[in-house]
Amino acid sequence: MRNTFMKIILPGITTALAAVSIQSMADELPLPSWNDGNNRQALLEFVEVVTTPESPDFVKTSKRIAVFDNDGTLWAEKPLYSQFFYVVDRVREMANEHPEWREAEPFASILRGDLEAALAGGTNPVLELLMTTHAGMTAGEFGAAVADWFETARHPVSKKPYRAMVYKPMLELIDFLHENNFKVFIVSGGGRDFVRVISESYYGIVPERVIGSSVKSGYELRDGKPVIVKLPEVDLINDKAGKPVGINRYIGQRPILAIGNSDGDFEMLEYTTAGAGRRMGMLLHHDDAEREWAYDRVSHVGKLERGLDEGPRRGWKIISMKNDWKQVFSSDL
Amino acid sequence: MRNTFMKIILPGITTALAAVSIQSMADELPLPSWNDGNNRQALLEFVEVVTTPESPDFVKTSKRIAVFDNDGTLWAEKPLYSQFFYVVDRVREMANEHPEWREAEPFASILRGDLEAALAGGTNPVLELLMTTHAGMTAGEFGAAVADWFETARHPVSKKPYRAMVYKPMLELIDFLHENNFKVFIVSGGGRDFVRVISESYYGIVPERVIGSSVKSGYELRDGKPVIVKLPEVDLINDKAGKPVGINRYIGQRPILAIGNSDGDFEMLEYTTAGAGRRMGMLLHHDDAEREWAYDRVSHVGKLERGLDEGPRRGWKIISMKNDWKQVFSSDL
Repeated sequence: MRNTFMKIILPGITTALAAVSIQSMADELPLPSWNDGNNRQALLEFVEVVTTPESPDFVKTSKRIAVFDNDGTLWAEKPLYSQFFYVVDRVREMANEHPEWREAEPFASILRGDLEAALAGGTNPVLELLMTTHAGMTAGEFGAAVADWFETARHPVSKKPYRAMVYKPMLELIDFLHENNFKVFIVSGGGRDFVRVISESYYGIVPERVIGSSVKSGYELRDGKPVIVKLPEVDLINDKAGKPVGINRYIGQRPILAIGNSDGDFEMLEYTTAGAGRRMGMLLHHDDAEREWAYDRVSHVGKLERGLDEGPRRGWKIISMKNDWKQVFSSDL
Repeated sequence: MRNTFMKIILPGITTALAAVSIQSMADELPLPSWNDGNNRQALLEFVEVVTTPESPDFVKTSKRIAVFDNDGTLWAEKPLYSQFFYVVDRVREMANEHPEWREAEPFASILRGDLEAALAGGTNPVLELLMTTHAGMTAGEFGAAVADWFETARHPVSKKPYRAMVYKPMLELIDFLHENNFKVFIVSGGGRDFVRVISESYYGIVPERVIGSSVKSGYELRDGKPVIVKLPEVDLINDKAGKPVGINRYIGQRPILAIGNSDGDFEMLEYTTAGAGRRMGMLLHHDDAEREWAYDRVSHVGKLERGLDEGPRRGWKIISMKNDWKQVFSSDL
């Protein structure tokens, strides 16, 4: 916030604003849901040194870029990615028009309610599902369908709306970075257009700052109206080595801060922290079976093995959900 | 600017800031290089109605998106696109390592200095050139090579640096839109990574707000360092119907203002102006042989025919370089 002030204020009113600024800082310490351990201190120190003009590590605002993974980093990914539950609901909706799905995998397993079996073949069949169920829709129709779904969908375990599955400490961190004139991007292995529907309302991140996996699209006139239509062809798989590729495509600059939670984020952290100057990479470790889930090396989603083994010696910080966070979810949802 | 003030100021200092705001407005009328005709008025009125909270056409800042074509809209594109001259210089640089180029088109024509002949096959051979000469380079190497080139390159007619070929009235418009909390994107048929090198310094537009044609890229470790490498495969041709596709990919929302100068921008304007609420489409008409160039229906670059024929009845404004602009280029460069 202070930098914004410095640009706008004029000499005569500096004192008044400085007083206001100090007052609001006292009212609200940054990152209140983070326990005051090494990781909270590391975040505060990092932001301080890259935003202080006199600091040797100062980074100008146009290059102050932070990237966050989404599933398992900003919101819960257990028992399965929320987008998977969206697709499941859509397959059920469309099943009457597709009798052949009763025989074909992974549709058949989904229609039997056996989601484990539907996922047995890995993520490719799920991607195929996604494309099959959405090809031919316009961007507007897809966005409306996803928005409708989020209105009523409930997380299968907590029975709460998905908005309630967002991590409060991460929302505070995004706000804190925005206040310090960072540009915060989501870099998700999930669907770009799926996450864009809720990114502004859930996270305060505008749609153009959401990078994710995508299908190709085309432009056409339907009933005389120009629309974007989803095509049944993969455009980008924004996972693993695809994350730095997506970052280069959408941002064109190397971030200075990257936060993820799985080995799908390894290359994103590797790319980010290899740049010149001060950099930071962090991995959220799901070690809190009581308040959320505990999983790492063996998991259908969010597998974290290489990151735990190599991360610390690469200087990456491991955030412990159990020890670093006072609160996991916003209680008021 | 006013909206930024309103969010930050606190009751006690409102009066002081309001006075400052009025003072700075009096010092500097918006769009000073635009003659005060219909087009300047249309721009001022459009920005007024979408930024005034009480207006029925008010648009919140996250959706206040403007898109500009680059070649022929923000800077001169005659006698040929600047990127083409960059590629020509690069082909000459690399010719010794490629004796086969002396026989193969479009290389042979370029090496003979016959640029017209090199372009005879349309834009595809140029694209091929671009890919051939850059495949295998890292994103960092490419950016550095382009930045180096811009340091010394001179426009073949004016003999000035390319920075001097930027249109002053368009720079004023970009600034005016930024002051009114618009998000301004470049949507270029030219190379995304080429334009990103100079966008911030020339136009005040950060790299992540540059959308353009691109090749695919990959992620790899070179000498142990993670890098993005350009691949010899087209990713997106961001021209004609590719422009709305690019807008959907990179922005995910329909712009409210689109400005171009050629039929390559037709679909971008069509897509933009077909959205709900107040919209604006504009085409810059190069009708100023004295201060720049005069061309439209017959031209290697920036062909404008359908836009002139259909634009006005679609409500698009035709900007006359000759009549609407007091000054074309900044004289102080």
